[in-house]
Amino acid sequence: MTENRQTRAELAEEITERIRPFVPATEEYQKTLTEAMAYSVFNGGKRVRPMLLLLTYRALGGDRAAEATLVDPFLAAIEMIHCYSLVHDDLPAMDNDRFRRGILTTHAKFGHAMGILAGDGLLNAAFEAALSAREPAGCEGRILAAMRILARRAGAFGMVGGQTVDVEKTGQPMTEEELVFVYRLKTGALLAAAMQVGAVLAGAPAETIDAVGEIAERVGLAFQIQDDILDVVSTTEELGKPVGSDEKNHKTTYVTLHGMRESRETEERLSEEALAILENISGGGDKEPLAELITSLVGRTV
Amino acid sequence: MTENRQTRAELAEEITERIRPFVPATEEYQKTLTEAMAYSVFNGGKRVRPMLLLLTYRALGGDRAAEATLVDPFLAAIEMIHCYSLVHDDLPAMDNDRFRRGILTTHAKFGHAMGILAGDGLLNAAFEAALSAREPAGCEGRILAAMRILARRAGAFGMVGGQTVDVEKTGQPMTEEELVFVYRLKTGALLAAAMQVGAVLAGAPAETIDAVGEIAERVGLAFQIQDDILDVVSTTEELGKPVGSDEKNHKTTYVTLHGMRESRETEERLSEEALAILENISGGGDKEPLAELITSLVGRTV
Repeated sequence: MTENRQTRAELAEEITERIRPFVPATEEYQKTLTEAMAYSVFNGGKRVRPMLLLLTYRALGGDRAAEATLVDPFLAAIEMIHCYSLVHDDLPAMDNDRFRRGILTTHAKFGHAMGILAGDGLLNAAFEAALSAREPAGCEGRILAAMRILARRAGAFGMVGGQTVDVEKTGQPMTEEELVFVYRLKTGALLAAAMQVGAVLAGAPAETIDAVGEIAERVGLAFQIQDDILDVVSTTEELGKPVGSDEKNHKTTYVTLHGMRESRETEERLSEEALAILENISGGGDKEPLAELITSLVGRTV
Repeated sequence: MTENRQTRAELAEEITERIRPFVPATEEYQKTLTEAMAYSVFNGGKRVRPMLLLLTYRALGGDRAAEATLVDPFLAAIEMIHCYSLVHDDLPAMDNDRFRRGILTTHAKFGHAMGILAGDGLLNAAFEAALSAREPAGCEGRILAAMRILARRAGAFGMVGGQTVDVEKTGQPMTEEELVFVYRLKTGALLAAAMQVGAVLAGAPAETIDAVGEIAERVGLAFQIQDDILDVVSTTEELGKPVGSDEKNHKTTYVTLHGMRESRETEERLSEEALAILENISGGGDKEPLAELITSLVGRTV
């Protein structure tokens, strides 16, 4: 377990360096913007989404030689989309969080207007990064196909849609259906995009891309249930943000609806199902690192 | 003049209908989001950017039969990018405007959080729209090339970059260099994107795409100077927003730096230069409607 963790931290560090060239930087007049954008990305993030993308690409036999030109732009794209969503979620008009991962949030450090603009800049830069990808001969069409998945799952029918309902329901009880809708879209959609983009870039056939979607759906829900569990059992120091905030905000979570024991059981079942589907995919690459990542995501403590 | 205006209004109406299918709509839980997005787009906008895109495409001999599948997605994309930028600019943390075009701004109607999310949703939907374009045989690569221009000019090195400096300099005097930087990026970049995307989709050669950029730079600056002039000479009723707001906010504008007479002269010179460059392009299509649009944009009263 300790060895696994170390490996994940190292891979996160490697991914951070691989996405760095795609995050805009300038000494021109708009310097504050690019500083705020970089601050939002290089803040000790765990890089879960690009990691899922990369390990799915490798599990499905993606060409290692093409990673730098074809995959790295998408690692940056998905991480910048994730980061922009956090920056905007933290804004005073939304969750109004001044701290994340133990440091000031972007708007708390750079001001509200810059928080809005840094988020906008990151979402835009995500697409710029993806558009800088280059397809090896024989792989034509993969960039557009991957971008279509990414854009769809990040937008009104994906992450932004889920965030909308989460915001609208703040302080109100949610039904199970509403809660699962939010989880599926707000968190699940981008995790699914990560894995499916990895599959598309690796050249996987349509049924494999669908199967990867099935895995991602379970991982996404389990991931979110784990978030709810951690909000109850973790400490502020471990989590880097206030714990018990769900209860404080009278928020419906999987734990408030189903209790701790059932939540843990559901999480375990989803994780096992995800691993079973992965087992059945004939990938052409090493599936073990992806399986380990999925396991560690569900069992994580921060 | 009256006849021209009528034609522009009709074309704006046609464009509005052509972009409608690309603006997300749903009856699902995130319905408020798509309502806010649609509200932000279908509000009587003049459709200047998609109009420039379409008329440039036609001026350069773009295939009329390919418009529906290749061009319309980009008409929607550029207009949604423009609209998202207005929605976010109007937010309380930015310009704090409650009215635009005589009606409530998006956040004033739907709340601050929804203003942020509707803007995010529109930027994302812009890329989704562009990604739904289809290239006719023999036109491979045009979608990616057009999207690269669009993304670059909308981001940190384009519109968002310009907006950043505009926000940072609010209430402070600007130098001529800073003002031109803001104009070139905040407004000029997206107008240039519109025209260059039209050129790329039409299959124009690189030197024509550059020449179109030269035209757009002049049109963009003239357009912005006209904005400054209108802020002084127009009435609130004509403009649909408070006039004299620049002076009220102690804002540096082209008029405050150079005075009304020189501003009008510069605007006229820029417009003439733009038309002269257009005249010299061997386009293969009808350049007259584009030339008329450029003329009317510079001489506009609203």
